[in-house]
Amino acid sequence: MSGDRSGKGGDVADRDTPLVRNEWYVAALGREVTRTPLRRTILEQDIVFYRREDGSAAALQNRCAHRSYPLSKGCLNGDAIVCGYHGMEFGADGRCVRIPAQDNIPAAMRVQAYPLIEQGPFVWIWTGDPDAADAAKLVPQPWFTEPDWGKVAGYFHMKASYLGLHENLLDLSHFPFVHGAALGRAEHAGAKPRVGMRDGLVHSSVLHRDIAISPAFAAAAPMTHPVDRLSEQVVPTPAIHLGKAIYTDSSDPPQVFNRYVVHFPTPETRTSTHYFWGIARDTAIDDAAMDAEALALGNKAFNEDREVLEEIEALVARDHRPEFREKIIDTDRGGILFLRWLAARAAAEQDALEQQAKP
Amino acid sequence: MSGDRSGKGGDVADRDTPLVRNEWYVAALGREVTRTPLRRTILEQDIVFYRREDGSAAALQNRCAHRSYPLSKGCLNGDAIVCGYHGMEFGADGRCVRIPAQDNIPAAMRVQAYPLIEQGPFVWIWTGDPDAADAAKLVPQPWFTEPDWGKVAGYFHMKASYLGLHENLLDLSHFPFVHGAALGRAEHAGAKPRVGMRDGLVHSSVLHRDIAISPAFAAAAPMTHPVDRLSEQVVPTPAIHLGKAIYTDSSDPPQVFNRYVVHFPTPETRTSTHYFWGIARDTAIDDAAMDAEALALGNKAFNEDREVLEEIEALVARDHRPEFREKIIDTDRGGILFLRWLAARAAAEQDALEQQAKP
Amino acid sequence: MSGDRSGKGGDVADRDTPLVRNEWYVAALGREVTRTPLRRTILEQDIVFYRREDGSAAALQNRCAHRSYPLSKGCLNGDAIVCGYHGMEFGADGRCVRIPAQDNIPAAMRVQAYPLIEQGPFVWIWTGDPDAADAAKLVPQPWFTEPDWGKVAGYFHMKASYLGLHENLLDLSHFPFVHGAALGRAEHAGAKPRVGMRDGLVHSSVLHRDIAISPAFAAAAPMTHPVDRLSEQVVPTPAIHLGKAIYTDSSDPPQVFNRYVVHFPTPETRTSTHYFWGIARDTAIDDAAMDAEALALGNKAFNEDREVLEEIEALVARDHRPEFREKIIDTDRGGILFLRWLAARAAAEQDALEQQAKP
Repeated sequence: MSGDRSGKGGDVADRDTPLVRNEWYVAALGREVTRTPLRRTILEQDIVFYRREDGSAAALQNRCAHRSYPLSKGCLNGDAIVCGYHGMEFGADGRCVRIPAQDNIPAAMRVQAYPLIEQGPFVWIWTGDPDAADAAKLVPQPWFTEPDWGKVAGYFHMKASYLGLHENLLDLSHFPFVHGAALGRAEHAGAKPRVGMRDGLVHSSVLHRDIAISPAFAAAAPMTHPVDRLSEQVVPTPAIHLGKAIYTDSSDPPQVFNRYVVHFPTPETRTSTHYFWGIARDTAIDDAAMDAEALALGNKAFNEDREVLEEIEALVARDHRPEFREKIIDTDRGGILFLRWLAARAAAEQDALEQQAKP
Repeated sequence: MSGDRSGKGGDVADRDTPLVRNEWYVAALGREVTRTPLRRTILEQDIVFYRREDGSAAALQNRCAHRSYPLSKGCLNGDAIVCGYHGMEFGADGRCVRIPAQDNIPAAMRVQAYPLIEQGPFVWIWTGDPDAADAAKLVPQPWFTEPDWGKVAGYFHMKASYLGLHENLLDLSHFPFVHGAALGRAEHAGAKPRVGMRDGLVHSSVLHRDIAISPAFAAAAPMTHPVDRLSEQVVPTPAIHLGKAIYTDSSDPPQVFNRYVVHFPTPETRTSTHYFWGIARDTAIDDAAMDAEALALGNKAFNEDREVLEEIEALVARDHRPEFREKIIDTDRGGILFLRWLAARAAAEQDALEQQAKP
Repeated sequence: MSGDRSGKGGDVADRDTPLVRNEWYVAALGREVTRTPLRRTILEQDIVFYRREDGSAAALQNRCAHRSYPLSKGCLNGDAIVCGYHGMEFGADGRCVRIPAQDNIPAAMRVQAYPLIEQGPFVWIWTGDPDAADAAKLVPQPWFTEPDWGKVAGYFHMKASYLGLHENLLDLSHFPFVHGAALGRAEHAGAKPRVGMRDGLVHSSVLHRDIAISPAFAAAAPMTHPVDRLSEQVVPTPAIHLGKAIYTDSSDPPQVFNRYVVHFPTPETRTSTHYFWGIARDTAIDDAAMDAEALALGNKAFNEDREVLEEIEALVARDHRPEFREKIIDTDRGGILFLRWLAARAAAEQDALEQQAKP
């Protein structure tokens, strides 16, 4: 594979590509959403998150319909949020329920309410057409919701496009250079995964035979060495990057253990990202040491990626080389397939919007 | 009253509305203008203020006519200011009076001199057509100039449009939410002022009968309780927001006392404001405790407004909701009348400029 | 001389004028370039500098051809630089020499390599058409390369256009106002240099007779007082501003000593500059006190100029006076001649580029 990253046809997504809105994105870790309003910009929209009195999560446009004051600066009154400017109150459905200075409440006085789904450690949001928000479109991830999995989750903010993060995750040849000895073992550097579209989605897989596994995982999982590891990656939506590692040991019959590393890149803007992630395993599920190892891995490795991607974002913003086009190599195949797939999804969504806008 | 804040016709002023230049604006508190040059941007122009040797205030374009160095970085030589780059000197009328490196001084070598009027604690500036600068157009405010009034004045900078400040002041229903118990008494929250145009200006008034007044004012003013308070607001120019409180007590014949709170929002840019203010009373005029109470009131309450308006400005600048339109409620009537009146003034000034520009 | 700085014809260079790329510019002091990569933006391009194992300096596009990671974040491997993202290596000629994840290396996988020349304390770079990079076009400056001269060199960053620096240096009437007593002696303030074009270049000269020279220079140079000083300035390229001071004493036959102050303004962007400078003398060449005096002079005086130019740049960026045009005086003659000459050079370069772009 060779050539430039973006062709003339614009069929490869870049920072000019509209964000895909008709999709579920992780908006917060559940533990972040409390009775104290949380302010967060998701897909370029300022949004306030809080919990109703029954504990369910709510999300509203963080901009009072009246005079644009951030609702997150106000306080809660039951399930409603009180604007800190003129005291207007909005229910969790976005309807204004009180205007202190008058009795009648115009129907138009409302803020956008966002559909949310809370599953496991994550709160998902839909910022697109509310009529299209269907819980069934949320890709099931039982490893984060079922009790027979051990799981951890994390979050950090990244001043870089989510596109680069998907590319990063689809080209593991960066492991030894970005993550050093911890992840940069030989099997990654020289890995030649099978990459292609499967069921309409980008799919990458590689089987490593007879490898050593990390000492922490070895201690927790009662496996007979050596093991084979099948690594699979799939990108079911722009919001989910699922990495599965399936370990098969040399017992007879073989034992199989799974460890899934899942990334949820949610665009804050086209050049900044809320980076959520989770790691789940189906062995040693109550092992605090395994939890600690997974949290340490995520916090170290994904921040190393973040540093790289932020450097790139800053360089692209200021370097003056109008003719520059990035070149691609073999290991970019997955990333380019993803960017093409994303460009097509974004274009389809824009076409639909234009159709709707027609008289 | 209901509907959106801005219609298609653009007849309601917003951040795109040109600033009204042919008007007197407060540029500084008199005590800020000294023999050390003061730099301040007024209506998007960098200006230097200083005092002549006779004590009168002067204001010049803070940009040397020669090489754009800020004159405020230089020093005074008599009534002239010396540029710190090549030593060029400009008199308080803007004419160059010395070029060290040559004897002849081209007539074109001059900087704009701004008409100023100093009255009471305020220095007023005219940044528009100099030929139109008429002292008679400055709305008289004897409560800040006459000796039979006690008065205080203050200033702070606000990173928000002056438009929102006018709206804020014309809708007192924000009092309990922004200013808390100190100002948020019941009579404000439920007040239904009579709002309309009077003599071509926005006017709002409300009569509160049998109310308690602040303990400090009660201690200073020998009134027989309870009292009636007539609150009137008028916006004579984009630069002045006059609030009158007229107290009438239950003596026979009744005593009448006045307390005026006046706001002077001077645009620095379209999204930042020099917020000057003054409070005057015609009782206890030499009472230092009353002065202190008024200063404390202004510094606390107006900064609370500032915090709200700055939050709105920041949100508007970054929130991506192209279709969003603010909704209006009954208490916005005064604000909307003001914004329409201001849009008309700005449009008339632009029309006149275009007429002048025609051959 | 009078009138406005820029006419309608755009024949005087300003911040909109394209940068002249087909020219040698100082990119670094030699001592800055080591085996640790140095990142610096030159003429709006992010560039990495380092030394090969043989000690020679190299400069590459600081943007990996693959995924835009700054190469300066990586490390050196022999004469190649290793990208810190996927481990790609680029030789000092810009060609990719290793892609860890694959064996074949596409010919297009390369970064721009910049021609460099190291002479004396300076490393020069050519960012224009590589085929036009001719060492013979570098104006010889033996006073910085030959052993019979004492020399010092310095560098600082300036948030201001290099154009203003050239103007500043061609109008010494700023000396008493910007540099105070140290440089602002009477002979500068009242100097009337002869200014014009000579051999197609801006040239300025002035002869001061019977002057005092600085005590430090007097101590070092065995001159019989008083002395005459011939000051000459010439701007051979946009990147070099050469000031010669030639001292002739009252001995019989007279002794002649030279002291050259040379400025190298390299645009970082159109509004920021790498300000390199050097001072050389042909007397007391090994005198550490003379070196120290020259370094102190440069660090003090040129930083005073920097402060002035940065104030101007900041003012121009924010002051809203669309009709404003700077006025010119007699002492601007040299600066205006330079800006015209530069506008012509930039226009010629743009014309040539457009010719090349034609089919």
